[in-house]
Amino acid sequence: MANDPKPDPTDLSRLRIVLVGTQHPGNIGSAARAMKTMGLSRLFLVAPEKAPNHESAALAAGADDVLAAATIVPTLTEALSDCRLVLGCTARSRRVQLEQHDPREAAGRLLAEAAGGAEVALVFGRERTGLENEELQLCHAAVHIPANPDYSSLNLAAAVQVLAYELRMSALAAAPAAAAPVRDDPPASHAQLEGFFTQLGETLDAIDFHKGRAPESAMRKLRRLYLRAELDEREVRLLRGILADAERMAMLAGQRR
Amino acid sequence: MANDPKPDPTDLSRLRIVLVGTQHPGNIGSAARAMKTMGLSRLFLVAPEKAPNHESAALAAGADDVLAAATIVPTLTEALSDCRLVLGCTARSRRVQLEQHDPREAAGRLLAEAAGGAEVALVFGRERTGLENEELQLCHAAVHIPANPDYSSLNLAAAVQVLAYELRMSALAAAPAAAAPVRDDPPASHAQLEGFFTQLGETLDAIDFHKGRAPESAMRKLRRLYLRAELDEREVRLLRGILADAERMAMLAGQRR
Repeated sequence: MANDPKPDPTDLSRLRIVLVGTQHPGNIGSAARAMKTMGLSRLFLVAPEKAPNHESAALAAGADDVLAAATIVPTLTEALSDCRLVLGCTARSRRVQLEQHDPREAAGRLLAEAAGGAEVALVFGRERTGLENEELQLCHAAVHIPANPDYSSLNLAAAVQVLAYELRMSALAAAPAAAAPVRDDPPASHAQLEGFFTQLGETLDAIDFHKGRAPESAMRKLRRLYLRAELDEREVRLLRGILADAERMAMLAGQRR
Repeated sequence: MANDPKPDPTDLSRLRIVLVGTQHPGNIGSAARAMKTMGLSRLFLVAPEKAPNHESAALAAGADDVLAAATIVPTLTEALSDCRLVLGCTARSRRVQLEQHDPREAAGRLLAEAAGGAEVALVFGRERTGLENEELQLCHAAVHIPANPDYSSLNLAAAVQVLAYELRMSALAAAPAAAAPVRDDPPASHAQLEGFFTQLGETLDAIDFHKGRAPESAMRKLRRLYLRAELDEREVRLLRGILADAERMAMLAGQRR
């Protein structure tokens, strides 16, 4: 921490996920997997009912490294001792008198604090009963996933997944130079588009599309459609190739008539 | 749709989750649970390897109503026929040439469209192999969860959880004001678009556009272009009118040859 002169805002390494009193070892594995998919790696287990076992490993799948590196401690206080910001997840929004964040706000706050060089923690309680009041009192604020009030029963790994996802989104947003959406080919130039529209008009005449109606309305609709699609150069060539073949057919047909 | 005068932007009822070719019945149950925690209820199953069973029900927990109401269909096309916006989840960002959204953008776009009165769909592929290319080609755009590049292995229910969460966040944020960007005409349905693509393929054959080359590459590019443009019903009719005239010319020319 202190020896890092230039904190990296995309760095999730100062953040720990703390699972308190987990009842099913499988859920520890699923939580490890959810963490790793979002680039989180530091897992603390506070007095799990059963230590991680084969079931945890099976559900961790390729995140067994996160599981193997987990720190097991007997009390929440020990898991948090060097942390400067601690947020605790809770399903029950009324019980706690803590400030409440939704997952997005929580992720932003945790990362901002971590970017400043602090160790930060996000704490999840037991599957059935969540965090106890005394445990929540160790937290600076609560995090509440705004679930369906009629059925708010996210399982532990699902809750970890949602928070880990928000942490990654927040880290990515803070990262420098978010990559531009890739298009293979350069967008068509104004001149290329106008060349296409001119040929389109000629083709519609050639195949007798208008049949005596004024061409403006159809052309206006077609311009709007193709401009909206933001054609690239290759697409303009493809469409002009189709028009050329339609014109060729019209010419052959005309020779017949 | 049409008889709903005041669409409610927080309403998730026009959105369907479509699971394609799910391999493990348990995952169908977990996905149903993930959906219900976020207030989603409409589940479509396309040719699951095994029908939902006791394992699905066990993992659905209290979301057995979502599971029981699921619609099982043999093909993706049937699941999508009345949908006007279809987004497909994909882990592989390079393979697809579709426009890509992150989950937040995807949720915003789906809800904006649904608020305008349209049926919309979010499609998830098989556990191991995801969506096939032909399936992705039925989608207007792709959704990519920006996972850890070194370990992007979210399980199916976790991916559903992340997207369902973003949909709920988006629905909660959408004050009654923020309705969809207004389009004069209703967007074309999946069935209308596929009808157009079929006719487009026939016309290209008729005007001898391919000249011995395999048609797939050109059709793929054209699909991408027109799906990106989000054609409305009137535009589809206009384009099909042009195709009909080009085919007519080809027929006349053919009589001459």
